[in-house]
Amino acid sequence: MTGDILIRNALVWPSADRDALEGGSVLIRDGRIVEAGRFSARAHTVIDADGCLVMPGLIQGHIHMCQTLLRGIAEDLALLPWLRGYIWPSEAAHQPESIRASALLTCAELIRGGTTAFLSIETTRHTDDTFQAVHEAGLAGAIGHCLMDETGGYPPIAVDNRDALAYCDVLLDRWGDHPRLKLAVAPRFVLSCSESNMRDACAYARSRGLLLHTHSSEQQEEITLVKERTGRCNICYLNDVGLTGADVGLAHCVHVRPEERRFLVETGTHVLHCPSANFKLASGIAPIPEYLAQDINVAIGGDGAPCNNRLDQFLEMRLAGMMQKIRLGPEALSARAIVKMATEGGAKLLGWENEMGTLDPGKRANLILVDQSGFHTLPSTDPATNVVYSCTANDVVMTMVDGKILYEDGHLTTIDEDKLKADVRRERKKLLERAGLA
Amino acid sequence: MTGDILIRNALVWPSADRDALEGGSVLIRDGRIVEAGRFSARAHTVIDADGCLVMPGLIQGHIHMCQTLLRGIAEDLALLPWLRGYIWPSEAAHQPESIRASALLTCAELIRGGTTAFLSIETTRHTDDTFQAVHEAGLAGAIGHCLMDETGGYPPIAVDNRDALAYCDVLLDRWGDHPRLKLAVAPRFVLSCSESNMRDACAYARSRGLLLHTHSSEQQEEITLVKERTGRCNICYLNDVGLTGADVGLAHCVHVRPEERRFLVETGTHVLHCPSANFKLASGIAPIPEYLAQDINVAIGGDGAPCNNRLDQFLEMRLAGMMQKIRLGPEALSARAIVKMATEGGAKLLGWENEMGTLDPGKRANLILVDQSGFHTLPSTDPATNVVYSCTANDVVMTMVDGKILYEDGHLTTIDEDKLKADVRRERKKLLERAGLA
Repeated sequence: MTGDILIRNALVWPSADRDALEGGSVLIRDGRIVEAGRFSARAHTVIDADGCLVMPGLIQGHIHMCQTLLRGIAEDLALLPWLRGYIWPSEAAHQPESIRASALLTCAELIRGGTTAFLSIETTRHTDDTFQAVHEAGLAGAIGHCLMDETGGYPPIAVDNRDALAYCDVLLDRWGDHPRLKLAVAPRFVLSCSESNMRDACAYARSRGLLLHTHSSEQQEEITLVKERTGRCNICYLNDVGLTGADVGLAHCVHVRPEERRFLVETGTHVLHCPSANFKLASGIAPIPEYLAQDINVAIGGDGAPCNNRLDQFLEMRLAGMMQKIRLGPEALSARAIVKMATEGGAKLLGWENEMGTLDPGKRANLILVDQSGFHTLPSTDPATNVVYSCTANDVVMTMVDGKILYEDGHLTTIDEDKLKADVRRERKKLLERAGLA
Repeated sequence: MTGDILIRNALVWPSADRDALEGGSVLIRDGRIVEAGRFSARAHTVIDADGCLVMPGLIQGHIHMCQTLLRGIAEDLALLPWLRGYIWPSEAAHQPESIRASALLTCAELIRGGTTAFLSIETTRHTDDTFQAVHEAGLAGAIGHCLMDETGGYPPIAVDNRDALAYCDVLLDRWGDHPRLKLAVAPRFVLSCSESNMRDACAYARSRGLLLHTHSSEQQEEITLVKERTGRCNICYLNDVGLTGADVGLAHCVHVRPEERRFLVETGTHVLHCPSANFKLASGIAPIPEYLAQDINVAIGGDGAPCNNRLDQFLEMRLAGMMQKIRLGPEALSARAIVKMATEGGAKLLGWENEMGTLDPGKRANLILVDQSGFHTLPSTDPATNVVYSCTANDVVMTMVDGKILYEDGHLTTIDEDKLKADVRRERKKLLERAGLA
């Protein structure tokens, strides 16, 4: 039919749990998958995928688009001095133009590297400009508007919570019916939110069916300060104020006590695992195999460019595997389990498990072609091993969201690459000047 | 002059310790660097390097070319079962054709990813075919012929030491005068070498000025077995039999006691750090900042494809930094110190510190151009941070060894890529059949 797309001659890997089929095809109609497997069909557009794996698009469960413009500004620091000295002053200095450049740069890196959907935390202002940029870029995801009503060590970034939620109303008015994007409500973390901020955020989000997104238990110093402030362990406190549940994603969860873990299990709260960020900020190794054994859903994400310094789900998958081996031994976490977190785990987090994460018929055509013929991937082996340990973001040769090709033949289709690069350089310079960090 | 090459308009980073110069040039004559910095010159060939960093070629201090054909065959295993069940049976089944395919595939991956020189351990047979392949590919390095006179749990791979050293004579006859390649003598590790094997290897190498290369203290189980067998801690025993010194590279050194570390310091023995392999085989985190603080020279390497699964010095640099942060805190190891290990550390190991590792005049023109304009490297920051945490092997756009371009414009100049890929697929299949692992 007109508009149908057929990807053929591919190694089709419909989901992390299933086997890959050589010489397979995927048929796409009206932005959705009609069939994936071994079959013949005709289509308006035929993509020959010889030498490539076709698999579900990667889904990053925790990123900060507004921070991508800050890549490399704050190296070799722990979480709190990194936040207070560099990240918050820079976020507070954002203007619509710098937010836009940062969001588009993020989209470019994500699309180029095979990420098709995400959950983010942005900053306390200008989130409308993030929506606009991601809308243009064509990615799917939930964009988290950040709530911070306490200074957290850097006053100018804070916003009164009534104003913040009024701004969320504006965002919902403008973007509430978007087919690929939705708003998430993101009280930043306990140390920058009053109790009423967190309770109001939960009430606001739940009355509107929105996701909640926050950080928890990333570093010991943070946990100590939370204890001093609330008298409670971190996730116990979050549970008290309502920030646990199947509509909540908790980034990091590196240092979590058994009683806290119970809350995660009982409420269906999602863990958002950020391997590189946890290494780069010296946080530690999250007990992911234990979470999976307790049926806690885990998604994987790159976190922020200034603590990574990439937003590359392939790197995160590789490190997610490596880091558990030195903790628990070589069999700690299978490559298939890692790919599952990086695809289906993210889909479940987003509440879109029936929409993406696998290549099942009826789901949105969010998928990627991954070249399997690079020297570093030869000889190829099973797709999970290849994807987790050999492939790189650069092996992605095509990225599709809702049936639309966002990257192909080395070029982004929705972003003017040269203009973006010029905008990034200009806006970075101006942003650091405004932040007093130039 | 005829044959001169001028790289211009580049960000010239002459060595890890120095600052990078924008708008710089490198002039190359007769395979060596004439000048690197800001100057004007004319040349027969001019390379415009706009948007690229030019830096010393990366040097991998520990690889196994003969294992690259085994990528992905033995996942999620610890060292000894991995060796005995998969690696040794496969190495023992190698024939000249499979050794050649494996070596050329290694060279392709190394060149593509900016590695210009290396130290390797091959297997107990067919090392002449490795020399031939690397000679054709154009890389520089020391190729280690592997000595194993005890079974180490898999009898067919062992070779009587007199025969092994006689084979080294043949290799020296053929390759002893090569301008870029040299032989190293590589008794594999204590558990597969008799004491006389190790002592004879040292005597043989030292009488001929050859490097010695072995593994040590990678895993606790290995150390326990060494203790049972020799009554000594690993490096104490190696020191007893002669395997310490400024001509010795010890791969791994993950678990090293203070009295062993003293031998490393006193003898000038080089530590060969393999971050990914140490994670993938669940070995642990080597105390690299402590080694550097004691002035122990450290080189970095990818080890073998089946325990990595890449041979990518960029990935190794990134993980080298990340892993120390969770061990010692965010300031544990600077990006500059990591780049220094990955370049000058390798040069010193090879005894070629006056020949490579920096862009100083008179040194061999072993250098790489690294694109700094990818979305994942924007906005760019200082070159060390960019190279260690943002760049990937794929950002390498040109690789030069001794003034000869081995990779440019997306293609290898010395290797027939299509033929290599076909050879790799065929030889892998035949090798695994011979090894009984198909």
